[in-house]
Amino acid sequence: MKKNIIVGQSGGPTAVINGSLYGVVSEGLKQTEHVGHVYGMVNGIEGFLAGKCMDIGALEETGELEAVKTTPGAYLGSCRYKLPEDLSDPVYPQLFQKLEEKEIGYFFYIGGNDSMDTVSKLSRYAAGIDSDIRFIGVPKTIDNDLVETDHTPGFGSAAKYVATVVREITADASVYDNKKSVTIVEIMGRHAGWLTAASVLARKYKGDNPVLIYLPEVAFDQDAFIEKVRTSLETTSNLVVCISEGINDGNGTFVCEFASDVGVDNFGHKMLTGSGKYLENLVKEKLGVKVRSVELNVCQRCSSEMLSATDLTEAVNAGVFGVQSALAGETGKMITFIRHRNHPYELTYGTADVNIICNEEKPVPAEWITEDGSDISDAFIEYAAPLIQGDVTLPKKNGLPVFAYRK
Amino acid sequence: MKKNIIVGQSGGPTAVINGSLYGVVSEGLKQTEHVGHVYGMVNGIEGFLAGKCMDIGALEETGELEAVKTTPGAYLGSCRYKLPEDLSDPVYPQLFQKLEEKEIGYFFYIGGNDSMDTVSKLSRYAAGIDSDIRFIGVPKTIDNDLVETDHTPGFGSAAKYVATVVREITADASVYDNKKSVTIVEIMGRHAGWLTAASVLARKYKGDNPVLIYLPEVAFDQDAFIEKVRTSLETTSNLVVCISEGINDGNGTFVCEFASDVGVDNFGHKMLTGSGKYLENLVKEKLGVKVRSVELNVCQRCSSEMLSATDLTEAVNAGVFGVQSALAGETGKMITFIRHRNHPYELTYGTADVNIICNEEKPVPAEWITEDGSDISDAFIEYAAPLIQGDVTLPKKNGLPVFAYRK
Repeated sequence: MKKNIIVGQSGGPTAVINGSLYGVVSEGLKQTEHVGHVYGMVNGIEGFLAGKCMDIGALEETGELEAVKTTPGAYLGSCRYKLPEDLSDPVYPQLFQKLEEKEIGYFFYIGGNDSMDTVSKLSRYAAGIDSDIRFIGVPKTIDNDLVETDHTPGFGSAAKYVATVVREITADASVYDNKKSVTIVEIMGRHAGWLTAASVLARKYKGDNPVLIYLPEVAFDQDAFIEKVRTSLETTSNLVVCISEGINDGNGTFVCEFASDVGVDNFGHKMLTGSGKYLENLVKEKLGVKVRSVELNVCQRCSSEMLSATDLTEAVNAGVFGVQSALAGETGKMITFIRHRNHPYELTYGTADVNIICNEEKPVPAEWITEDGSDISDAFIEYAAPLIQGDVTLPKKNGLPVFAYRK
Repeated sequence: MKKNIIVGQSGGPTAVINGSLYGVVSEGLKQTEHVGHVYGMVNGIEGFLAGKCMDIGALEETGELEAVKTTPGAYLGSCRYKLPEDLSDPVYPQLFQKLEEKEIGYFFYIGGNDSMDTVSKLSRYAAGIDSDIRFIGVPKTIDNDLVETDHTPGFGSAAKYVATVVREITADASVYDNKKSVTIVEIMGRHAGWLTAASVLARKYKGDNPVLIYLPEVAFDQDAFIEKVRTSLETTSNLVVCISEGINDGNGTFVCEFASDVGVDNFGHKMLTGSGKYLENLVKEKLGVKVRSVELNVCQRCSSEMLSATDLTEAVNAGVFGVQSALAGETGKMITFIRHRNHPYELTYGTADVNIICNEEKPVPAEWITEDGSDISDAFIEYAAPLIQGDVTLPKKNGLPVFAYRK
């Protein structure tokens, strides 16, 4: 008997989360023997509970599905909604009634840790009531911090963005190379430094910028940092330093918090200073050189122009493999990436128990960070390089990328 | 008799300033009948005075010249050096002696207003001493504020970057479309709003984000702004507002200055807040909605991945035409762009007296801004659209663009 698919997106957007959506929808539509309609939850589980649902499968006929694949953000809209821990909460029967009404047999949720928590709870509740609806998580996060998978969709494109832009910033920062200067680039990653580590790929030759790279995995020592900047300026006039937004003193205090109580604005709000801005002031004070800080900001997770073809292909395949796994009987699983080798790069797809994943975070291994904590080792380069390969040709109109959006 | 060429770069970098350098060098090398060597000043006139000069023509043989064309920043290095107003200053004979030693017949300076001031002074000094060295300015600025030319190389690529990234930020900002939010994007442009105006190109349909756009050409009224944001949120849940860094009250006070005295940091430095950050706090205070501000920062002037093919071609041609004009006997001129029509877009190159250019700034015409100062008219779209057309395929290695750099 045919059942319907429902798919949702949750958490922060990435450049390829819609690639995975495309994968689920296009594969679902192919499985005509087992699948009826392919529905989309609008604004995730929160929107679905409020009755927001669309026939996303219909986009194939209108030709819009192709543009969804390369549109950044979350086509279906997202949410940050946490299901209750207590599985006897009335929201569960309410939700399952809605799923039954729509004759859902296969439920896909594309997201990070919190989304996997949703998949975990729903699949456990389903087991408790003997429901045969299958729940599959499709991973997504630029942070690359999910366990049980070699890497996550979204990381490769964000890493390519960071490496490209840091290379561009280095070119920009080097034009007054007869004067000394420091440029501090602040990169996303509160707890895991994967994305900041990717800035090492920007180096064009040994000793090139970014000369210094700091991750949250290593306790940040302000005095040692200043000393490193001072000695690095002796050989590199225009120094570029990459730091993770989450660098901290090793005892739970973020570097940006050292500056957070310095003043209030006109309205009495605390002036929040990022870690980059704080270190900009620190270097200016201690070394008296020209310093600026650049916060890469949201562009690192939503750049369509710097998509990695490898990342996009894998994101799509994660969605496709998710549908195939559900049809093969799996539930309570997240799709995983298994890397077999680097030369040539070879990857297959698998599944892992979602319960193991949802409460864990994977840091950059200590052995991939140099001993003094200011650089990244070649082992990381070996790991990350294959993930940023290949360019994606975007659909364009009037010089700009064409993005899909809900009408 | 053969003479040599010298070329320099000055002022802030753009994505295509090296395109113009490529144009000068490649055309210079072609003119074997009239031109001997093609030299480059390292760090502009300041570096040249200090004896820093390279044989940039030699890059053609090594094959590196091709990569120079698409490398952002300033391959030769830049400077911000102002020649003395007094032409009897000893620096002038000193400089001309160095030019004579190198047997320079043609001098090219690629830059904005200040660089044209250099060309003006050198050509006037040359006339005074009956030197036959010819001085030509090649325009460059993302600000697009030079007079006597339809537009400037560097603007098209920066405009394409701004339009693309604002479209991406809109996608990113819209994922929680069940909640209200405001995103304020701060774009470069202290006195002229051309680049901020280009954000209008990001709209995918009538009424799309960015709904509000504010330029420095119009006095900024904070109360009217808040009222506009409030009413716009009624129809657009996730509002994107683009502002120029230089928005001001019409009496010379930048909006960011309203916040600049709010506090000092740990080191006693004034906490400088950008206009975007200031308005973020203002909206939070007055309307109580979720707000964030994004500063596009240096990437808007150094993005190689979002080069406009039209802009790059014109930047190269400006260099080529500069060499041809000098050989034809012109001096004390800047290369200009003359637009003949938009459908199809047609452009030719000309020259204008550099003395007219160096002390003027061209604002966005008042009639291209809507009456209440919160939007841009269709006439601007007509003007800007041709300048962002076409993509450039960059030389790539390991997934990243290959940039040229001085060894």
